[in-house]
Amino acid sequence: MSEQKHIVLSSHPPRADARPPEITWGAASASERGPVIGSINTPQQRNVIGVHSGAYGLYRALAIAAGTLDPVHKPDLTNTSPTTQIGPFPQWSDPGKIVSIDPYGHMVADAFSEHLERGFDIRPTIAVTRARIHLPEIREAMAAERVKPDGDVLLEGGEVAVTKAAIEPVWYLAGIAERLGTTEADLRRSLFEYTGGMFPELVTRSDLKVFLPPIGNISVYIFGDITALWDTARQVACRVHDECNGSDVFGSDICTCRPYLTHGIEECVRTAQAGGAGLIVYNRKEGRALGEVTKFLVYNARKRNPDGDNAASYFERTECVAGVEDMRFQDLMPDIFHWLGISRVDRFVSMSNLKYDAMVAQGIEIGERIPIPDDMIPEDARVEMDAKKAAGYFTDETVSTPDDLSGTKGRALDDY
Amino acid sequence: MSEQKHIVLSSHPPRADARPPEITWGAASASERGPVIGSINTPQQRNVIGVHSGAYGLYRALAIAAGTLDPVHKPDLTNTSPTTQIGPFPQWSDPGKIVSIDPYGHMVADAFSEHLERGFDIRPTIAVTRARIHLPEIREAMAAERVKPDGDVLLEGGEVAVTKAAIEPVWYLAGIAERLGTTEADLRRSLFEYTGGMFPELVTRSDLKVFLPPIGNISVYIFGDITALWDTARQVACRVHDECNGSDVFGSDICTCRPYLTHGIEECVRTAQAGGAGLIVYNRKEGRALGEVTKFLVYNARKRNPDGDNAASYFERTECVAGVEDMRFQDLMPDIFHWLGISRVDRFVSMSNLKYDAMVAQGIEIGERIPIPDDMIPEDARVEMDAKKAAGYFTDETVSTPDDLSGTKGRALDDY
Repeated sequence: MSEQKHIVLSSHPPRADARPPEITWGAASASERGPVIGSINTPQQRNVIGVHSGAYGLYRALAIAAGTLDPVHKPDLTNTSPTTQIGPFPQWSDPGKIVSIDPYGHMVADAFSEHLERGFDIRPTIAVTRARIHLPEIREAMAAERVKPDGDVLLEGGEVAVTKAAIEPVWYLAGIAERLGTTEADLRRSLFEYTGGMFPELVTRSDLKVFLPPIGNISVYIFGDITALWDTARQVACRVHDECNGSDVFGSDICTCRPYLTHGIEECVRTAQAGGAGLIVYNRKEGRALGEVTKFLVYNARKRNPDGDNAASYFERTECVAGVEDMRFQDLMPDIFHWLGISRVDRFVSMSNLKYDAMVAQGIEIGERIPIPDDMIPEDARVEMDAKKAAGYFTDETVSTPDDLSGTKGRALDDY
Repeated sequence: MSEQKHIVLSSHPPRADARPPEITWGAASASERGPVIGSINTPQQRNVIGVHSGAYGLYRALAIAAGTLDPVHKPDLTNTSPTTQIGPFPQWSDPGKIVSIDPYGHMVADAFSEHLERGFDIRPTIAVTRARIHLPEIREAMAAERVKPDGDVLLEGGEVAVTKAAIEPVWYLAGIAERLGTTEADLRRSLFEYTGGMFPELVTRSDLKVFLPPIGNISVYIFGDITALWDTARQVACRVHDECNGSDVFGSDICTCRPYLTHGIEECVRTAQAGGAGLIVYNRKEGRALGEVTKFLVYNARKRNPDGDNAASYFERTECVAGVEDMRFQDLMPDIFHWLGISRVDRFVSMSNLKYDAMVAQGIEIGERIPIPDDMIPEDARVEMDAKKAAGYFTDETVSTPDDLSGTKGRALDDY
């Protein structure tokens, strides 16, 4: 990099004759909306703050520093296009409906072919592929005859055929501010100041309307005929799941995360087999978006509570450490449903009132709500479950609820 | 926030009389090293670039924007301290040995008690807790009598007792640069320019030596008596695992990630039962740190290859899309071993030459290397496995290796 001498610390709007394509969020068509350009190899084309790949943009910068990646590398996107068509849907051209992802992110090759021909470096922010997934819990469900193979959705060996997508965050700042009940100016200022000064452009470049934040992506897994998702005559089962590495990957028994996730997959399989579609939305919001360090600190504070780890003081422990109970902002979560053209979920595999309220506020109808079966709740996870029920979690007659929250106790640290 | 009028776009070194504690990386003791202060509620105390919680720092800023979190909230850390003592070890006071985490991050209450009394807002960057994990694959291993319950490490019901830790990234920039073979100035410039201008302080504040990057954290799971990790007279089994959400959580059959991880856990249980300790290191480096969108794009390019998805062109597809085969920078990975005082791994559950070479380069002895058992490799994952073997993956007589890489073919997209 020795030939580059001049460091520009903060960008300025380009001269009129060198302007990159404008983004008109929520415009009626892709060409009117304009492409999102976040690549760093031709800075004068950029029309966003930040770079692609969310938090992995940092690794890209490391690779350039280490001399292993050419900074002007342009991806060869041959054969990478989606394995199935998704959209466009009317929801895409309503500026208030989708604010945290780019609905055209998977189809940039088609939607912005003209810009691509003119040399703009437009990259997908969404990738759609096919997979077969093989889960021990689905094999157990087959053995217990809760699900049966049909040779299409669920194969004899227990494999499940899915379409899946990875979706990077693309934040339309005015829309995010509106969804969170604040002003764009305050949002920009907070995002700048309370990240320790990340991206001065947030406050200096109000002409840049879109931000690619360095956070994790969303993954979706779709079961059965994908077109059933947007066909209201057919059933949709869905679980919205927020990452919990300790349970999802390692099977920790302090919460219900993986059991509820695999129960959701079972429901998705059954609904797909009956002619509908299933959907798992997986959001990288570890520990209620507080991160895993905070989560483990809270575990210790709970387990060392002189009154024992108990449902009555469950939320309080989180708030002492983190300042809030939850930072997940479910208000932004329904975007993924609008992207998939979904207006109704018939079987919502979630007891969360926050998720339910966010969906309904976005005009997505919810039919039945499916609690986790009682026998899937690990003993030590009853503290969390009972605390959440008392705080507004959905329950029905299949769900046991204690009268006295302080009676639901978890394991103490000495008992591990 | 209406009372705050003045926005400071780029910070400047404070006056001498208002200086925060200095960080002398790799000093002989915690007090000589100095605390890492990344909180935003008292900006004049800060001695780093960036904020705590990695990528989740963005959610904290959102919470302040939405008015749900008080920006001056200071965590109440009562009862959050580690459940077991780790260190200090001689490795902690060698400035070249640990460059990407803060070895004192879990013990700030003890190590920096004096600073805390003087009102500095010092937060843990590491949390250590206890857990019980319950994995279907371990129940299967018990049924097959590959592991037997002992009532301590592995319980009758299949639960495994572990100590676990979450570790946030804390980058000592001069050390990172040295590890990657570049200069600190070039590293700072690349991190700034190729993230689209994140943190001007990277180039303007060379007095700030430490960066808290907005990326994912590391998790470690420890099996058996933790003191065996740093006691060279006892055995250590270890798998270093890089995140693969599609397999680790959803069981996708295109790779060996979850099977190898659960095999690693089996090895950890056996070694712990024999009086040693087991260690799983889980790094958030999805898709070789290229991110999941890039990963899924590459899947499509592989599956649509006119010659079929095959081992011979496996790496080439990644490089076409991403510009590199891999961005994981295993060079930084051994830090976690130095933090845990580990100088020898007797049973390394990995075939990766990149991981092996990085460990050896850091002076960590490796005894046996344990390949994934052949019968745990999903059929469609043989493409990846054979490509990696040809590129330098460790193999032994238990591992089958094809003569002709183009013969190892995966499923085409039409066959899903």
